[in-house]
Amino acid sequence: MKYEMVELTYAGDYATITMNSPERRNALSMQHMLELTAAFNEAGDSKVRGVYLAANGPAFSAGHDFRDMAGQDLVFMRKMMKTCVTLMDTIQAIPQPVLARVHALATAAGCQLVASCDLAVAADTVGFATPGGKGGWFCFTPMVALSRQIGRKRAAEMLFTGDVIDAKTAYEWGLINRVVTADKLLEESEKLMLAATRGSFWSKAIGKQAFYAQIDLEQPKAYSYSMEVMAATSQTPDAQEGMRAFLEKRKPNFQR
Amino acid sequence: MKYEMVELTYAGDYATITMNSPERRNALSMQHMLELTAAFNEAGDSKVRGVYLAANGPAFSAGHDFRDMAGQDLVFMRKMMKTCVTLMDTIQAIPQPVLARVHALATAAGCQLVASCDLAVAADTVGFATPGGKGGWFCFTPMVALSRQIGRKRAAEMLFTGDVIDAKTAYEWGLINRVVTADKLLEESEKLMLAATRGSFWSKAIGKQAFYAQIDLEQPKAYSYSMEVMAATSQTPDAQEGMRAFLEKRKPNFQR
Amino acid sequence: MKYEMVELTYAGDYATITMNSPERRNALSMQHMLELTAAFNEAGDSKVRGVYLAANGPAFSAGHDFRDMAGQDLVFMRKMMKTCVTLMDTIQAIPQPVLARVHALATAAGCQLVASCDLAVAADTVGFATPGGKGGWFCFTPMVALSRQIGRKRAAEMLFTGDVIDAKTAYEWGLINRVVTADKLLEESEKLMLAATRGSFWSKAIGKQAFYAQIDLEQPKAYSYSMEVMAATSQTPDAQEGMRAFLEKRKPNFQR
Repeated sequence: MKYEMVELTYAGDYATITMNSPERRNALSMQHMLELTAAFNEAGDSKVRGVYLAANGPAFSAGHDFRDMAGQDLVFMRKMMKTCVTLMDTIQAIPQPVLARVHALATAAGCQLVASCDLAVAADTVGFATPGGKGGWFCFTPMVALSRQIGRKRAAEMLFTGDVIDAKTAYEWGLINRVVTADKLLEESEKLMLAATRGSFWSKAIGKQAFYAQIDLEQPKAYSYSMEVMAATSQTPDAQEGMRAFLEKRKPNFQR
Repeated sequence: MKYEMVELTYAGDYATITMNSPERRNALSMQHMLELTAAFNEAGDSKVRGVYLAANGPAFSAGHDFRDMAGQDLVFMRKMMKTCVTLMDTIQAIPQPVLARVHALATAAGCQLVASCDLAVAADTVGFATPGGKGGWFCFTPMVALSRQIGRKRAAEMLFTGDVIDAKTAYEWGLINRVVTADKLLEESEKLMLAATRGSFWSKAIGKQAFYAQIDLEQPKAYSYSMEVMAATSQTPDAQEGMRAFLEKRKPNFQR
Repeated sequence: MKYEMVELTYAGDYATITMNSPERRNALSMQHMLELTAAFNEAGDSKVRGVYLAANGPAFSAGHDFRDMAGQDLVFMRKMMKTCVTLMDTIQAIPQPVLARVHALATAAGCQLVASCDLAVAADTVGFATPGGKGGWFCFTPMVALSRQIGRKRAAEMLFTGDVIDAKTAYEWGLINRVVTADKLLEESEKLMLAATRGSFWSKAIGKQAFYAQIDLEQPKAYSYSMEVMAATSQTPDAQEGMRAFLEKRKPNFQR
């Protein structure tokens, strides 16, 4: 696929998807969302072990662009929203860990992108906000991702006020995994990504899928499910190789 | 309605509901709860943009008063508890953001009141506790609100020990949004309230309703729901006005 | 019952279950898990007011031992996993508060043990990890307990990287209740246990059961349930005694 709004690049075992419409502050137009979803699927089907989500320009992403939506009817708007939810689902559905490398302001669906990635590292100059709350149209779908990451009072504050929280606060609230100086953003993102993609690719791919499958279930159901997956995956070549290598005190040789 | 235990006052765009039985430490007797619920409904039906929950006297609220309950039978007790749950539900059901302005100790159902408000600001001298755990009757219903606000280990600690946590700890655990010196309580509460009530009233009212509707759902169901609400509300006059004003670089003029 | 891997001791009103296979780093072999489950049930059926989970040796628990599992078939592995889940459920099902007293590294199902206890105190030298993520077999069942205790991004980081977090971080993330110097571990654990086991035994036993029963429910269902339990337990002798004692300004005399 040829991308116009997005760059998909490969370097070694990793793919980077870069939002590249800086003049529109990486607004999530229909085309931009479709390209992002396609790029995540393409990277997901490739041989890479991890995927970065990055961006060019003065903003990480400003979310949806009112220019694409003002005056549009309900049929169009449902399609926009459905496309947006599909993008967020795709990030969590591909087998590789996805790490948001946040260099600049992430707002509304842009903040939701960060919340939807498995991991996130941000520069300490960055802010996060769901500004719909202070306008005419509440951030309903960003709320789903955001309110599952930070506490209720904190989510209510961000959603009702629309105010920007800084990266340090986002870190303390658990929205991101690291806050670093801007000059360390690449290096620290890579460090976390390398740590998060060690070991068997297959084991981690099923692990990621199971993480999201069990997280909202009542605990007994989550255990019923996770127990079966854990027992079944014990029979995979990589699980057996991992155990043998440990017992033989040698490095494991995983299938992938 | 005429209130005896509670004061409902209006100032500008805001209502304040003040628990006013200081000599009983604002204990939640049946009458007190019915008046609070009525006051929240009355304020909710009014034209105000936000509602403060405040209190007079040496305690914010001590929760239920054993004088009202000792020796009472099951039929009476069920009614008390049902009335209490209805009060908590009403706080989250009215369209306006509700902010607890906590000047003094909040315990048991008083602590639950704080947990049930959308936002909370507390003086740094304040404590919070669910003391049932160290007595003869566990804080079962306060547990529902509390354990959805702070982590499980922290909730277990408060519920089992019954010990008081201070306002700074409550802030770090996400039970409250601000901890301030007592002399700044009014000012900082107002600041947060103003920030939380900017923009379209209707948009935020539906936003608040959706927040609680989606928060406990599994993520796919939460997205199905929130996506439809977001698409549908895009067609409201206030959403369209917000978009147009943004694109025309002017202040929006919302219906309310 | 005679235990070989585990010590069950009683002192005053408290039981201590000590994992005692230091040379195997308290690995959770089938026998070890069955003995732990039996010990928790035995302590749970006894007259004690609280149960400590402790360990001897250089590790709190290293989780499962690959020596017990490498080359085993699916039927055996399902039994192992089911036995492990039953152990974790038993900790939360016995009527007494269970406090993990963590003196050394807790990994994989060992970390899950800490997450599954109601309360936890750890020495500041301790680390916690779910190392499956960097091997060939993901920590699927530890994930269930861990991801319900700390935020999603943090859980994803621990599960994907397999890296050790220190006790201070575990405290900040809400995985444990106290982090103390090693020489204060016994004293601070006892202090928290005493605070958590004051008051009516029966009230707290039903409280603990209700805590886990309601925690994953949608809020309206959690309230329906907790309201009935609160009303029903108001009729118990200990609830009535607690109220009367409070009103008569004397110490309560609970049944147990």
